[in-house]
Amino acid sequence: MTPPEAYQRLIRLYREARLLESISNLIGWDERTYMPTKGSAHRAEQMALIARMVHEQLTAPVVGESLAAVERTSVVAAPESVESVNVREIRRVHDRAVKIPAALVEELARVVTRAQNVWQEARHKNDFPAFAPWLEKIVRLKREEAQAVGYDGSPYDALLDEYEPGATAREITAVFAELRRELTPLVGEIAAASKAPRADILTRDFPVERQQMFGQAAAAAIGFDFAAGRLDTTVHPFCSGIGPGDCRLTTRYHPREFNQGFFGILHEAGHGIYDQGLEPEHFGTPMGSAVSLGIHESQSRLWENQVGRGGPFWEHFLPRLRQTFPGQLDDVTHDDFVFAINRVARSFIRVEADEITYNLHIILRFELEQALVAGDLKPADVQGAWTEKFQQSFGLTPPDDARGCLQDIHWSMGGLGYFPTYTLGNLYAAQFMDQARRDLPGLDDDFRQGRFARMKQWLNEKIHQPGMRWRPRVLCEKVTGKPLSPRPLMTYLRQKFGTLYGI
Amino acid sequence: MTPPEAYQRLIRLYREARLLESISNLIGWDERTYMPTKGSAHRAEQMALIARMVHEQLTAPVVGESLAAVERTSVVAAPESVESVNVREIRRVHDRAVKIPAALVEELARVVTRAQNVWQEARHKNDFPAFAPWLEKIVRLKREEAQAVGYDGSPYDALLDEYEPGATAREITAVFAELRRELTPLVGEIAAASKAPRADILTRDFPVERQQMFGQAAAAAIGFDFAAGRLDTTVHPFCSGIGPGDCRLTTRYHPREFNQGFFGILHEAGHGIYDQGLEPEHFGTPMGSAVSLGIHESQSRLWENQVGRGGPFWEHFLPRLRQTFPGQLDDVTHDDFVFAINRVARSFIRVEADEITYNLHIILRFELEQALVAGDLKPADVQGAWTEKFQQSFGLTPPDDARGCLQDIHWSMGGLGYFPTYTLGNLYAAQFMDQARRDLPGLDDDFRQGRFARMKQWLNEKIHQPGMRWRPRVLCEKVTGKPLSPRPLMTYLRQKFGTLYGI
Repeated sequence: MTPPEAYQRLIRLYREARLLESISNLIGWDERTYMPTKGSAHRAEQMALIARMVHEQLTAPVVGESLAAVERTSVVAAPESVESVNVREIRRVHDRAVKIPAALVEELARVVTRAQNVWQEARHKNDFPAFAPWLEKIVRLKREEAQAVGYDGSPYDALLDEYEPGATAREITAVFAELRRELTPLVGEIAAASKAPRADILTRDFPVERQQMFGQAAAAAIGFDFAAGRLDTTVHPFCSGIGPGDCRLTTRYHPREFNQGFFGILHEAGHGIYDQGLEPEHFGTPMGSAVSLGIHESQSRLWENQVGRGGPFWEHFLPRLRQTFPGQLDDVTHDDFVFAINRVARSFIRVEADEITYNLHIILRFELEQALVAGDLKPADVQGAWTEKFQQSFGLTPPDDARGCLQDIHWSMGGLGYFPTYTLGNLYAAQFMDQARRDLPGLDDDFRQGRFARMKQWLNEKIHQPGMRWRPRVLCEKVTGKPLSPRPLMTYLRQKFGTLYGI
Repeated sequence: MTPPEAYQRLIRLYREARLLESISNLIGWDERTYMPTKGSAHRAEQMALIARMVHEQLTAPVVGESLAAVERTSVVAAPESVESVNVREIRRVHDRAVKIPAALVEELARVVTRAQNVWQEARHKNDFPAFAPWLEKIVRLKREEAQAVGYDGSPYDALLDEYEPGATAREITAVFAELRRELTPLVGEIAAASKAPRADILTRDFPVERQQMFGQAAAAAIGFDFAAGRLDTTVHPFCSGIGPGDCRLTTRYHPREFNQGFFGILHEAGHGIYDQGLEPEHFGTPMGSAVSLGIHESQSRLWENQVGRGGPFWEHFLPRLRQTFPGQLDDVTHDDFVFAINRVARSFIRVEADEITYNLHIILRFELEQALVAGDLKPADVQGAWTEKFQQSFGLTPPDDARGCLQDIHWSMGGLGYFPTYTLGNLYAAQFMDQARRDLPGLDDDFRQGRFARMKQWLNEKIHQPGMRWRPRVLCEKVTGKPLSPRPLMTYLRQKFGTLYGI
């Protein structure tokens, strides 16, 4: 078999594994949108079977042989060619997969499918003890996974690497510490400011069907293609890119709360625009895949916050919002509205947090899950540890588990190592947007007129189309000319909220 | 490996194949309910991959070895034991599967996924020529399949056998001929009758959301468990049993037409009650599977027609229907309504046909698809052949393809050999119901009071729980004490429509 033939075989096998995985994504979407409650046990079996098959396919000896037959040949001579990138990343995935026993993969898939149902029920009933045994199972299995994969620094790195290739707990800790040093006093200044937004504007009568209609129109306006996607309702919003031509957004609504539904949609649409921007002919290969969760999150944050929570955006959309909810916003000026959607407050729920305190929510989770993975915190003690840390960071005591340690789906999905990518996303988003404003003068005028094509095009070219050509940090340097830094985010936050709050 | 060990291995492998297939059912459901239009090509790839994997699993040498190691041993000593039934049926499936080349299986899965989209579009545009090349591909592949599988009588038998194990075109032709001899004059008598139902009753204002609410309540009343299932909207209604705790019904509505939506739901709920009545611990094995499509159809027909189109049923439901559509049915008596939902008329659309002419629609399709499979009819000539046969049977000319040869999804799904099971279902339904009335005196009183538990329980025990223990015809004899016969159906039709039309 010649090296080019070995490469073709490698790509065929890898694509098949990703095709299988895309089926798993689809039935995972169904699980969280339309599956009847009694279907959970059977779904867990389906998920476990696919997880095992994907793992078998990724770890098959023929994959290792194909890699060996193509590495260090002329096929991968050019360092950033399609072939080189694909081989480099498949090698990474293959090496990781072979270290994890098949039984562990299957067990994890089965446990997390059931655990999500238990979590949903426990959250509904504010009953952490009902979820604790499942969290314990998951933490045990993820610790096993970390040991199997191996690590240089901390076991947490082995899990983090799956979501953010190359990142380490140590380096994230340093960045987050710097961020916290600046964010905490900023939150204090804002709390002490003499100006405050009108609290009543966003808790009026917003019928769900109209929220859905308005949100869908906004998602379409910024560039999400609904002929190649959908928007549905779920408990914990997510975006799932199934494959070329099929990307599913989800959100949740509250009939008397505007922010949750709308910014949820904008956020997920940002993810969706990334997925829809990947090159379809590279589907199932690294060149047609997202770089990392941090970069993925930068795309959702950019549209949700940098664009969607900005004044220019609402010059276009506020008149339309008034039409959608007749009479509800007649007494509200543009400035009132923009201030209201940017209200900063210490609060309990991460996904409803403002752009500043959001990061403090992440840091809390990052610290807790490091302790869980290190074995320093028992899963059964998470409730107490959460409360303690929350009091330290926010000066508040969560009134119940749904507004405390049960609010997020991630741990029930086995997603330990996932949370820090959210704040990385905020950092990347600010840095990308800073660059986009330099590259595209007059961007705010576009937004004022409801035009988002230049912005989307820029993201398509700079971020989406390169797939995994570069690792996250390299991509950041390629796009912005600078390494990742908390500066752009802090500058953006200080300027924006300084103006809003007059500080 | 001991015979009991070989049996365990066999069951494990077979269950896995069926688990994979249940994933394919789920993503097939999604394809026809929620998939965005641009997702079709990717879905075809997903379906083809699973089809190939199922086929690989069913034909794996280890399955053949396990079968050989358990057949003619003490494990299968008792002829109708769980083990014997499972081994017998897995042998049948394995032998069939090994005869069909993997490439053909994969190609068929890919072609039919795309073809369904083409069909939907062509039907919408009344454009048979757009669909013809796809029909040609499908007929060619199905003919290849028939040759690969082999047959004694006609190649059609090889395809029919997949849906109705053991049935032959020859024996069905004989039964259908007898049926047609009796049905054709009956249709004539009815057309000449002096009584006729009021035509306006069912074409009033029936808002879709209320139809859905009412239909869902009726499905729940007859025993479909919505905690283990759903009801959604689609172009061509179907029921898909995904697995224990998960069964999906679909229907379509017309805002000024009652029958289509409601009886569609009742029909699919009948299928669903069968699927929900299978033994969950036998999921994925023949003992936990439906006997045949003919028997499956008997369950939908029984609830739709024998129960749902009967007078007693509407003594309970008509008052509720009046409440659901206030003002719409004030001038309609119970007898008016029951007559209206049983109106007999020569018409174009099979799924909207009455209980009598329905079977003539099936006979037409049965004859056409036999000719296609035999190679006597070219796929491109189906449009003309359809029109000619329709004129012969119904004395009418289809005004367009949507009301002619493009009305059904089946051929686009590769389902040649499927249609006759519908009329077999009608025959079985009448014979089962006849027996149920003997076993359960006062059944109509149950229905008058909206009680369906005894009926459902009887079906659960007699038909659903035995799984594939007996082949369809044997099951019929076990349940009714008699071989399948057109007599019960003809007696039922003559009596019911004789009374309604006063003939």
